Amino acid sequence: MERTRTTEVGQHVGQRARVAGWLQSLRKMGGITFLVIRDGWGIVQAVTEADAELGPLQDDIGIESVIAVEGTVVREAQAPGGYELHELSVEVITPVMEPPPVTINKRKLTASAGTILDHAAVTNRHAARRAVLRLGTGVMSGFRQTLTERGFTEIQTPKIVASATESGANVFKLDYFGRPAYLAQSPQFYKQMMVGVFERVFEVGPVFRAEPHDTTRHLNEYVSLDVEFGFIENHFTVMALLRDVIAGILETLNAHYQAALSLLKVELPAVPGEIPHIFFPEAQELILRRHGIDVRGEPDLSPQDERWLGEWAQQEFGSDFLYVTGYPMGKRPFYTYADPDHPGFSNSFDLIFRGTELVTGGQRLHRYADYIAALEQAHLPIEPFAEYLAAFRFGMPPEGGFAIGLERLLMQLTGAQNIKLVTLFPRDLNRLTP
Amino acid sequence: MERTRTTEVGQHVGQRARVAGWLQSLRKMGGITFLVIRDGWGIVQAVTEADAELGPLQDDIGIESVIAVEGTVVREAQAPGGYELHELSVEVITPVMEPPPVTINKRKLTASAGTILDHAAVTNRHAARRAVLRLGTGVMSGFRQTLTERGFTEIQTPKIVASATESGANVFKLDYFGRPAYLAQSPQFYKQMMVGVFERVFEVGPVFRAEPHDTTRHLNEYVSLDVEFGFIENHFTVMALLRDVIAGILETLNAHYQAALSLLKVELPAVPGEIPHIFFPEAQELILRRHGIDVRGEPDLSPQDERWLGEWAQQEFGSDFLYVTGYPMGKRPFYTYADPDHPGFSNSFDLIFRGTELVTGGQRLHRYADYIAALEQAHLPIEPFAEYLAAFRFGMPPEGGFAIGLERLLMQLTGAQNIKLVTLFPRDLNRLTP
Repeated sequence: MERTRTTEVGQHVGQRARVAGWLQSLRKMGGITFLVIRDGWGIVQAVTEADAELGPLQDDIGIESVIAVEGTVVREAQAPGGYELHELSVEVITPVMEPPPVTINKRKLTASAGTILDHAAVTNRHAARRAVLRLGTGVMSGFRQTLTERGFTEIQTPKIVASATESGANVFKLDYFGRPAYLAQSPQFYKQMMVGVFERVFEVGPVFRAEPHDTTRHLNEYVSLDVEFGFIENHFTVMALLRDVIAGILETLNAHYQAALSLLKVELPAVPGEIPHIFFPEAQELILRRHGIDVRGEPDLSPQDERWLGEWAQQEFGSDFLYVTGYPMGKRPFYTYADPDHPGFSNSFDLIFRGTELVTGGQRLHRYADYIAALEQAHLPIEPFAEYLAAFRFGMPPEGGFAIGLERLLMQLTGAQNIKLVTLFPRDLNRLTP
Repeated sequence: MERTRTTEVGQHVGQRARVAGWLQSLRKMGGITFLVIRDGWGIVQAVTEADAELGPLQDDIGIESVIAVEGTVVREAQAPGGYELHELSVEVITPVMEPPPVTINKRKLTASAGTILDHAAVTNRHAARRAVLRLGTGVMSGFRQTLTERGFTEIQTPKIVASATESGANVFKLDYFGRPAYLAQSPQFYKQMMVGVFERVFEVGPVFRAEPHDTTRHLNEYVSLDVEFGFIENHFTVMALLRDVIAGILETLNAHYQAALSLLKVELPAVPGEIPHIFFPEAQELILRRHGIDVRGEPDLSPQDERWLGEWAQQEFGSDFLYVTGYPMGKRPFYTYADPDHPGFSNSFDLIFRGTELVTGGQRLHRYADYIAALEQAHLPIEPFAEYLAAFRFGMPPEGGFAIGLERLLMQLTGAQNIKLVTLFPRDLNRLTP
C-alpha cells in the first residue's frame, strides 16, 4: 500500500491509509493504546483497544523505532492534526531496543544546552528543535526568493582564502599544500568583485570566525546571508532593499511555516513600509535627553544604547525595527564610504531589531583611487588586495550591501536564549562534535 | 530619469530610456560611433553620428568605464537584442583610464587559462564567462526547486569537523583553538544524521578535498549538491529521484537560461523517463564482448570503460545517460549497503553522462549493528563516529542519497575542457587567489 504523509491523512477519511515514520510515543491508558508516529512532515496518532493490533510493538520495542502503521482514518478533534488511525496493522521497520540519551518526546527539551548539543543527532528530532531548524530553511528560502525577484544572481565564493586581511585577527589558519591559508570570515571581497560581473549578487554560505569567546551569542561557524549590488544612490538604497528582504523573509515564514511558528509561539514582527532611521550622533543625543547618560563621542553603541533606541522606536513609531545610520568611520572597515556631508561619519548603518543589532551594512568605496587612499590611511599593504582592487580599477558603480547572520536572526525571531540552540550542529570554542 | 535594464529597452520603443552599466565597447566606423553598454542582465547598443552626443566619452575614457546613456529607443534588427538607442546623452559615472589586463570584449577570451584565472575579477565579466557562471546559478535553482517540490528540507551543515575519518587522506587540516580540526570533504555524515530529523534533506555548499593533483578535472574546493532521504526500497529509489533531479535542473535551464545556453551553444541532453541501467559485472562482460578487452574482476571502471559504456547507451537506448549499478563493495565507503543477492557487490551506482561519471550514489546501511560490523571490517575505530552512529542507534529507516559536483556538471554540460574555467574563483594545488 502506498505511503501517506502524516500531514495528509485527513485527505483519506473513512479509508485505509499507511503512514511510516518514527514511534514518537506509546502510551497505554485504561486499556487503550495511543501511538504517535512522526515522519518528515508532522505527526499522527494511532489508537487501538486491541493489543493484537499492535503486532510486533508488544515486545520490548522502544520509542524512535521506525515503523509503518496502516489504519482507517477517522476524524477526531482531540487528536493532534484532527485525525487519527483506527483498526491498526503495525510493521516494525527498524527496531530500537534502548531509550534515547535525552527524552525527546515531551513538550520541552529539559536537558542542559550542553547535553542537548552533545546529542544533536537525536535531540534535533525534538518537535521544538525541528520547528526552529525548519524556520532556518524558511529564512533562506524567503531571502533567495525576494532577491531573485529583484534580478539578483546567486553566487558561491571560495571559503579558503590566501590572506587574513579583511579584519586581521580572528581567522582560522590552515595548511594549504604547505602554504598558509585561511577560512573566509565573510564573502565581502568576493561579492564586491562580483558586482562588476552580475551587478546584483547574493550568497548563502558558511563563514568562519576564530573569536575565542564562549557565550550564548557566539558561533565560530555560521551561515551568512550576503547581498551586494551596484548603482545605488547611497546607503539609503541599501536600507530600502534590506527592508524588502526582511519583509520577504517574514512573508515566506508567514505563508509556509505556520506549524513551526505556532509550535514555537513566535509572533512575527510587522515591517513598516519604511523603517524609521536615526543618525548616529542624534541617537546619542536622544539617549542623553531620555536617559541622562552622556554617550556622545563614543565610537559605537553599547547593548544598553541599542535597547534604549529599540524602546524609543517602539514608542515613537510602533516599530520593532530601527536603522541607526552614519556610524563613525573609525569603527568601520577600510572599504566603508565616508559620509560626504558629515566628516568622520560613514554611509553605513545597523538595523536594530527589538533593541538588538541584527544586520550591518552600508555603501562601499567604488573608486580605485579611494581604495588606495583608504588602505594607506589604514596602514594596510596594497599587494595582498591587488586582485580585489582590480575590480575597482576596471570600473565599478557606486555599490553597497549587507550581511544577515542566519542563526542570529532565528535567535531573535524565536526569542531563543542561546544561539547554539537554533543551530543544527554548532561550532564553538569547546565544541567540534557532533 | 528612471533606469531601464538593457534587456527591457524594447518595452520603450519610440520613447526615451536611460540605461546604465559598463562601456563594453566603443567603435567608430565612417563617422558613426557605436557604444555597447553592459549591465547585470545583458547589453544594448547606442549609436550616434554626432560626436557632441558622446559628451565626456570624447576624452580618454576607456572601456569598462561605468556610464549612463539616455537615448530614444529604436527597433533595429541588426543590433544585439533587436533595439538600439539614438540621440544620446552620456554620463560617465566611474571613468577607467587604462585598458583591462585581458581583452574581455571579443567573442572569445583568447588568454591562457592561467591568465584568465589570475584576472578573474575582470575576466568573469566576459560574456562567455558570465554565461557559464550564470548557468551554475540555474543548476542550483533547478536542484532546489525539484527537491523542495518533493518535500525535501534544505540544510546547512558544519564545514569544520573533528575527524578526518570519512576517507582518511586528502583532508585539509586546520588549527581550531589549539586543537586539530579538518575541513569537511562532504556533508555525508551530517546529511545522514538529518534523515533522522527531516527524513528528506538536501544541501548546496562547499566541500574541500586536499588532493595534490593539478589537472583540468580537479578542484580542491567545489560546490556539492547533496541529497539524502529515508524510506527507500533500495538504490533504485535513489536512482529514480536522481533522474527527476537531473530532469528538473535541465528544465530550469531550458526555461530560464536560454540566453546563456545559446551564447555557449549548449545543446541540453534529453533525460529518458527511465534512465537505462546495467549491473557492474554485466558492464564488464559487455566490454569484453564489444571491444575484446577483458576487465572482468577489476574493482572499478576505467575512463575508457566509461566511454565505451556511454557509446553503448547511446547506440542501444539513444540515451546520454546510463546507470552502472552494483559497484564492488571493496571500492565503496564503509557505510555502503551490500547487495543482498550478489555477494561482494553493493547497492550503489554511478551515473554516466556522455561517457563520463557524473554522480555517485547509493543505499547506505541503516541498522546500528550493521555499522558496528562494517567499521570493524574496515579496521576503523568506533569512538570518532559515536555521534554519527547515534543517529542509527536510535532509529533510521532504509536510506540513501547522492552528490552532484556543481562544477563537474557545468563542465560536462558546456563541454568545457577545464573545470577551473567553469568556476568563479577556483582553488587548486597552485592557486589560492584571487
